[in-house]
Amino acid sequence: MYRSHTCGELRPSHIGQTVTLSGWLQKSRDLGGMTFIDLRDRYGITQLAFNMEENAAICQEARKLGREFVLKIEGEVIERSSKNKNIPTGEIEIKVAKITVLNGSKTPPFTIEDETDGGEEIRAQYRYLDLRRTTIREKLLLRNKVALETRKYLDSQEFIDVETPVLIKSTPEGARDFVVPSRMNEGQFYALPQSPQTFKQLLMVSGFDRYYQIVKCFRDEDLRADRQPEFTQIDCEMAFVEQEDILNTFEGMIQHLFREVRGVELDAKFPRMTYAEAMEKYGSDKPDIRFALEFVNMNDVTKGKNFGIFDDAELVLAINAHDCAGYTRKQLDKLTDWVRRPQIGAKGLIYLKCNEDGTFKSSVDKFYSQEDLAEWAKTANAKAGDLLLLLSGDTDKVRKQMNELRLHMGDELGLRNPNVFKPLWVIDFPLLEWDEDSNRYHAMHHPFTSPKPEDMDLIDTDPGKVRANAYDLAMNGVELGGGSIRIHDRDVQSRMFDLLGFSKEEAEAQFGFLLSAFEYGAPPHGGLAFGLDRLVATMGGSDSIRDYIAFPKNNSGRDVMIDAPSPLNDEQMDELGLRLR
Amino acid sequence: MYRSHTCGELRPSHIGQTVTLSGWLQKSRDLGGMTFIDLRDRYGITQLAFNMEENAAICQEARKLGREFVLKIEGEVIERSSKNKNIPTGEIEIKVAKITVLNGSKTPPFTIEDETDGGEEIRAQYRYLDLRRTTIREKLLLRNKVALETRKYLDSQEFIDVETPVLIKSTPEGARDFVVPSRMNEGQFYALPQSPQTFKQLLMVSGFDRYYQIVKCFRDEDLRADRQPEFTQIDCEMAFVEQEDILNTFEGMIQHLFREVRGVELDAKFPRMTYAEAMEKYGSDKPDIRFALEFVNMNDVTKGKNFGIFDDAELVLAINAHDCAGYTRKQLDKLTDWVRRPQIGAKGLIYLKCNEDGTFKSSVDKFYSQEDLAEWAKTANAKAGDLLLLLSGDTDKVRKQMNELRLHMGDELGLRNPNVFKPLWVIDFPLLEWDEDSNRYHAMHHPFTSPKPEDMDLIDTDPGKVRANAYDLAMNGVELGGGSIRIHDRDVQSRMFDLLGFSKEEAEAQFGFLLSAFEYGAPPHGGLAFGLDRLVATMGGSDSIRDYIAFPKNNSGRDVMIDAPSPLNDEQMDELGLRLR
Repeated sequence: MYRSHTCGELRPSHIGQTVTLSGWLQKSRDLGGMTFIDLRDRYGITQLAFNMEENAAICQEARKLGREFVLKIEGEVIERSSKNKNIPTGEIEIKVAKITVLNGSKTPPFTIEDETDGGEEIRAQYRYLDLRRTTIREKLLLRNKVALETRKYLDSQEFIDVETPVLIKSTPEGARDFVVPSRMNEGQFYALPQSPQTFKQLLMVSGFDRYYQIVKCFRDEDLRADRQPEFTQIDCEMAFVEQEDILNTFEGMIQHLFREVRGVELDAKFPRMTYAEAMEKYGSDKPDIRFALEFVNMNDVTKGKNFGIFDDAELVLAINAHDCAGYTRKQLDKLTDWVRRPQIGAKGLIYLKCNEDGTFKSSVDKFYSQEDLAEWAKTANAKAGDLLLLLSGDTDKVRKQMNELRLHMGDELGLRNPNVFKPLWVIDFPLLEWDEDSNRYHAMHHPFTSPKPEDMDLIDTDPGKVRANAYDLAMNGVELGGGSIRIHDRDVQSRMFDLLGFSKEEAEAQFGFLLSAFEYGAPPHGGLAFGLDRLVATMGGSDSIRDYIAFPKNNSGRDVMIDAPSPLNDEQMDELGLRLR
Repeated sequence: MYRSHTCGELRPSHIGQTVTLSGWLQKSRDLGGMTFIDLRDRYGITQLAFNMEENAAICQEARKLGREFVLKIEGEVIERSSKNKNIPTGEIEIKVAKITVLNGSKTPPFTIEDETDGGEEIRAQYRYLDLRRTTIREKLLLRNKVALETRKYLDSQEFIDVETPVLIKSTPEGARDFVVPSRMNEGQFYALPQSPQTFKQLLMVSGFDRYYQIVKCFRDEDLRADRQPEFTQIDCEMAFVEQEDILNTFEGMIQHLFREVRGVELDAKFPRMTYAEAMEKYGSDKPDIRFALEFVNMNDVTKGKNFGIFDDAELVLAINAHDCAGYTRKQLDKLTDWVRRPQIGAKGLIYLKCNEDGTFKSSVDKFYSQEDLAEWAKTANAKAGDLLLLLSGDTDKVRKQMNELRLHMGDELGLRNPNVFKPLWVIDFPLLEWDEDSNRYHAMHHPFTSPKPEDMDLIDTDPGKVRANAYDLAMNGVELGGGSIRIHDRDVQSRMFDLLGFSKEEAEAQFGFLLSAFEYGAPPHGGLAFGLDRLVATMGGSDSIRDYIAFPKNNSGRDVMIDAPSPLNDEQMDELGLRLR
């Protein structure tokens, strides 16, 4: 037997009992007459005490043990003379009678503490040691809990967990697939799913009614920071539903998760905003509504005063930073540099200080009178003490830039508390977006999203204006998930493939099974998918998903711990009938 | 709104209510004055009634609807005049006031009934229709329930669900990997995991203490019947445990599953049998112990009577088929033909009938006296009326053949009731098995399995005799899962790689990360994995896993519905830097 109790379990009520514990040596302190060891396992830390006078032999033994040694000890639970109120086991310690070294340890390359001295690379290489740190383990425990509570909730709503295949068919549409050569079908390849989209729709055709799966998906994209080639989705689909049913069901799920896992009661009813409004007010389809700083259209009050930059701009936007009129020249220069960085790409930043004395100070004073500037302030609802920040340019660009600046100011002003959670449904996404490169429309969500019936007549005349029954759930500036009501009619689906530039043959070759399924009684259906990695990171109050994944890959898609990917040997290549270029 | 109730929900208490239902037209009956339609959804079937006299228009409309049309109907719940006691909704029907056809349907290529007229191929091609059949849906509902109850149990035992990566590193040892070319690392490949073995061991090194995952695994093997290239494991690992802890924990899990999912109370304590005993008594490491028919060693009573076949055989085995002395010549010939089939490969079958009058009749009467045969009967504990069946040959071969014959007789005699469940732990597996082809030892379980400490001294002198701390859970002749206590010592692990023919460099290149992890305080640990597909099929009382998988592949590894795998286009091949041979 390795242990009678865990290292997080013993309390004053156990005093006098003889116990066996196993765990890792977290640290030891040699105080001359006494030696103390903190023994750690997943459940906590227990202090071991060795008294030189009472038992010199074992005390000597204890002094030889190094950090991260794996120990099994037997001893008596005794009351601690100097209690530690910070840990649950802090009122007791173990008077150790016997030590067994289960395994030794070299000195770890970094300290196994919440605040470690290890850099990112060394921690990635020794991920199994990095995972020993309590702060990382707790993130993965949170993930475990979120996943299980998701299942419990969806089960209570009659959703069925159905596993869809991982070895599927490659479809050139959309992001790039990872592919898997088939040895038994030489020259042919499987693809790894970017999502189980078509399979879950087929399950609706099959009458499964409500489906879910927490499932790995794969996308061979050039990795931006915080993207992983494999990621996990909470994937769901429902039949005989309208958009309203879906929003309500998953609002319930997110409320359940925050309640059970974080003890947080979210809005009883999540606010909703159209895509158009979100873009206009926040320049983002996933606005962070923990704070205002909403965009104000300044076109009417800025144009026509011979300030060329504004006159030439399609759109002049402002945000009103309350109580920031005191910003120094240095602070404003820093902000200007910030928006000029290539990641943001603005040419400059115009400000307007609404001084406490009622006067205005702007960076473009020579073009605008105090009266003009008063109009600015009025338009942006700015009061004395406020600071307006203005950007201008083409609509899409300036919205993107202003979105970045708004989030940056939110951070600067401490308005983005990671323990405040503000969900928002963004609805009525456009069905299509124009792609300049390929000179044609792409599906904004995916080719299976249904147009809004009331916009159907625009589909020939002005396809870009057609709105979809598509929705995203945003929270704190992050997209947690999204979905749509799907097409369930063969003709509409064919029409959509057409619109997206598929030839009849291509549509048939790639999605013939789905088109065929639609001919045998497909019910109305819709669904959505949440990104589990992102959801858990958001619930944990973190921007980065990496530490919520046990074994993440780096930005080149490598697992540096196991050193993958790696070359195959000749025999393997031969069996697959493959050659390298 | 598509429905106020499901098709399985309405009862006499709803009579008088106006309801909306949606579902598929299962069948319709036109009785002249009345037309009835069975409307089906996942939850059940509800009868719709149309009365020609009361509402001719809607009745005419109803008569035009075909099988598998998707309908939404509104109407009043009324009492049924001729009640159907066989279905929960059999006491009511709906007097329909309005029909909306949500989607039409072509006539399906086979009937959507429990007993369908569709052959295997056509059902595979139209899997989305096959899945509509209640009998298939119930199998997948069973799977869903087993998976969820597995999670609930393991969660209650403090196991943490941790996702391990799907894109890992190829290791030539063991079965063949599926591989994934890396575009970002040209010329290099990921592999899909055959199991998360090394990752779960690393999680133990990381102090996760108890890990589980229900996870897809992949093996590129030539598919035998009922093997799938992708399959699902319940994968588990525990630290600071001995074999006994693991067996008890998972005995509890299997008991929980049968109790919650099937309402079956299994043995309070699962019987255990060593691998050696299982091979001796049943010729199988997964004996079906629902019935006896145990092997009897007949060497002592059959040899030395000038019957060359037995004299030359290494082993003569008998099984005693109770009350089968009445088998006719034809029946015995058929059995003989059965064991001679190439799949079994026996040269012949010897029988001994223990007649009711106390005489004996055997196929080798001319070599054995009645006294000799009485000795046979006595050795095999055969009574008047029993039938002994004997096979002989080399030990391994004859055991295999007799195992097949025993199972066959179990089937013939109705001793293999699919609703009786007999678990058995098979323990003390050999560590290694000799492979004639490569002329070296292979790991019987995998290279991470620990030898029994008491057999360690045999490792140099007689490695084949070393037993491992390895165990399988068998049930009804099926292996549900297996595992082992792992090596957690770097030196022992290096030694094992050595024994298995790895060079130091190969071991380092493939498993360096694990060997390195063992130097930083690896705890004692062990675990096991259950095959979910197999477990669910066994719980469902079925031999075949295929219908417990939503979208299975055929024996060539193809998904005939979506037509995968398939060729890549040139652009994709170029991006991956690959050429076909």
